[in-house]
Amino acid sequence: MPIIPTVADWIAQTPGTISLGQGVVHYGPPPAALRKIPAFLADRAHHKYVPDAGMPRLRKAFEEKLRAENGIDVPFARRILVTAGANQGFLNALLCICDPGDEVILLSPYYFNHEMAVGLAGCRAVFVPTDRNYQPLLAKVEPAITGKTRAVVTVSPNNPSGAVYPRETLLAINRLCAARGIYHISDEAYEYFTYDGAAHFSPGSGERGTHTISLFSMSKSYGMASWRVGFLVVPEHLFDDMMKVQDTVIICGPAVSQAVALEALAAGRRYCLRRLSGIARVRERTLDALSRIPGLLTVPPSRGAFYFLVKVRTVMDDLTLAERLIREHKVAVIPGGTFGIGNGCYLRISYGNLASEAALQGTRRLVRGLKAILGG
Amino acid sequence: MPIIPTVADWIAQTPGTISLGQGVVHYGPPPAALRKIPAFLADRAHHKYVPDAGMPRLRKAFEEKLRAENGIDVPFARRILVTAGANQGFLNALLCICDPGDEVILLSPYYFNHEMAVGLAGCRAVFVPTDRNYQPLLAKVEPAITGKTRAVVTVSPNNPSGAVYPRETLLAINRLCAARGIYHISDEAYEYFTYDGAAHFSPGSGERGTHTISLFSMSKSYGMASWRVGFLVVPEHLFDDMMKVQDTVIICGPAVSQAVALEALAAGRRYCLRRLSGIARVRERTLDALSRIPGLLTVPPSRGAFYFLVKVRTVMDDLTLAERLIREHKVAVIPGGTFGIGNGCYLRISYGNLASEAALQGTRRLVRGLKAILGG
Repeated sequence: MPIIPTVADWIAQTPGTISLGQGVVHYGPPPAALRKIPAFLADRAHHKYVPDAGMPRLRKAFEEKLRAENGIDVPFARRILVTAGANQGFLNALLCICDPGDEVILLSPYYFNHEMAVGLAGCRAVFVPTDRNYQPLLAKVEPAITGKTRAVVTVSPNNPSGAVYPRETLLAINRLCAARGIYHISDEAYEYFTYDGAAHFSPGSGERGTHTISLFSMSKSYGMASWRVGFLVVPEHLFDDMMKVQDTVIICGPAVSQAVALEALAAGRRYCLRRLSGIARVRERTLDALSRIPGLLTVPPSRGAFYFLVKVRTVMDDLTLAERLIREHKVAVIPGGTFGIGNGCYLRISYGNLASEAALQGTRRLVRGLKAILGG
Repeated sequence: MPIIPTVADWIAQTPGTISLGQGVVHYGPPPAALRKIPAFLADRAHHKYVPDAGMPRLRKAFEEKLRAENGIDVPFARRILVTAGANQGFLNALLCICDPGDEVILLSPYYFNHEMAVGLAGCRAVFVPTDRNYQPLLAKVEPAITGKTRAVVTVSPNNPSGAVYPRETLLAINRLCAARGIYHISDEAYEYFTYDGAAHFSPGSGERGTHTISLFSMSKSYGMASWRVGFLVVPEHLFDDMMKVQDTVIICGPAVSQAVALEALAAGRRYCLRRLSGIARVRERTLDALSRIPGLLTVPPSRGAFYFLVKVRTVMDDLTLAERLIREHKVAVIPGGTFGIGNGCYLRISYGNLASEAALQGTRRLVRGLKAILGG
């Protein structure tokens, strides 16, 4: 079983658990966007298939967003597809550019769904460790590229670590990929979630961005996880193949979700930013609480997404610790093994999931639980 | 480019075209189901991810539908997953049961997305021709099975031919698959669309149904194509692996679509059957019109879905003919090459797509167009 559903089962068996586990925000989509649904559904054509690549108005709106916010200047008709979430976009990208037996480089700790997708595509995931602050090490990425490598995957701001990669690092990966004739797959689902002055950079906007495949998502920024809307921005030479893959995997993304996404984009980035200040406050207070138990854990610095990936000072395995935290202390976090961490006990703590009071109560339970279980 | 978008482009360039092309029905989902949307969306939890396998209430409702209508008696918790359409369900099934290099048997003419999915999974599609009435020939299927074969795929009622496979044929394929230790993937998206006394049979209900993977869809029966809701019914031993695949491909199907699907199932089969009588009348009149030009085409008998796959008596290639029918006569059909037919000029005519008058006008244009282009 994937870990997330396993943890969900433990939570379901332990009523009253506060989840600092799942990677979701605590808010939903803009109410004004939801109010437009009935008018959209009144048109019978909207119940038939919509274009495979997505509704043109939505793709056009995303083209404008990319130009204004990300510095990516691409015509939607030949570069942008709407997917049912960024996960489906990632799988599409692999199915398009890889053949079975190819290799894909993931930076570890990695996002578990990326590792599973590489496996489903019949490819081999090659893991390149990041540094102690979860930043990519170019000197380790480069020698990992072989004749079979098809892509280097980055996630910034990062899931699970919260690390935000600097512009220069992402551009260096662009250059490396261009020089080796492979792709840089850049997952930017958390683009709006940065703190303490960290700035998100889209490698598709920069030098050698022609080798970059960029993934975006409405799930986090607009609270639309259950709606399944993502965007795939591809080099033009891949577009026709991407259309075939899209038609095969899902035909088209759900139309009603695209209609809501269009209205959400009209509400714009400020919809997310207004909520981000509250999340930033929870983050500060969580960090403060975690910093007070240095004997139990260390918190590598991170300034993005809504995660801390903390190292717990114990020989207990992470899965056992996570299960005991739920069953004995009613607080859920995700064990580091989920992200491929094998050396040591790590936990991913999500602080975007709950309105502030509940999140802080969850943090208190976590601190209390760690003290009780590990002693300290 | 896949053929369907290509034909869509020709149509877009030819305003006023009547489409007997796309495989959709002319109606939308039950209005009562749509009216429940605001109440569903008022719960903020419904904007977060819903369970990977689908919302339990929907899966339970589908379990009951399967028992009452299909004779398939399975507990939803270990056998039923909600997918974003039956296409995604088919891809999930392949990614679950196949390794790269494996073979999957498709009966030709085949549904084009199945052939593409087999390719995306890194497998080889092995085509076994059907008979002149598009019925499976067991004597040809059996010798096509090799040590690498993982599944035999059937679609009944069939896209593109409209053929409805008899119970005995489907059970024989079950037995064959069980004997060889492979799976029978049964696509039943058109289960409600039968005519002239033809009866749909679900092989998952019968002998050796433990080797059957069954696919269902809300797209046709409930006019929900754009909502992307399908069901995947799997042997229990595959369930955990299917969960991993589902999590990787899409995490979960869109929640709002699942909420509408639940209400649509409450409206039930009769919602479709009330509209089916109108489609059956269009079918009769279409068949009548096509039967009057035997010098131009023949219509193999078929009693299901909403397709006729006709053989046109011409040396002209099907793609050229289809394009000329659109550009010169403003009527769209799908060329047979889409379905792997290489020997002769075939056209798929869909009669479910339009309310009756428009469909009949489309048929008149088709007949007139064929006469004008082919002379007759």
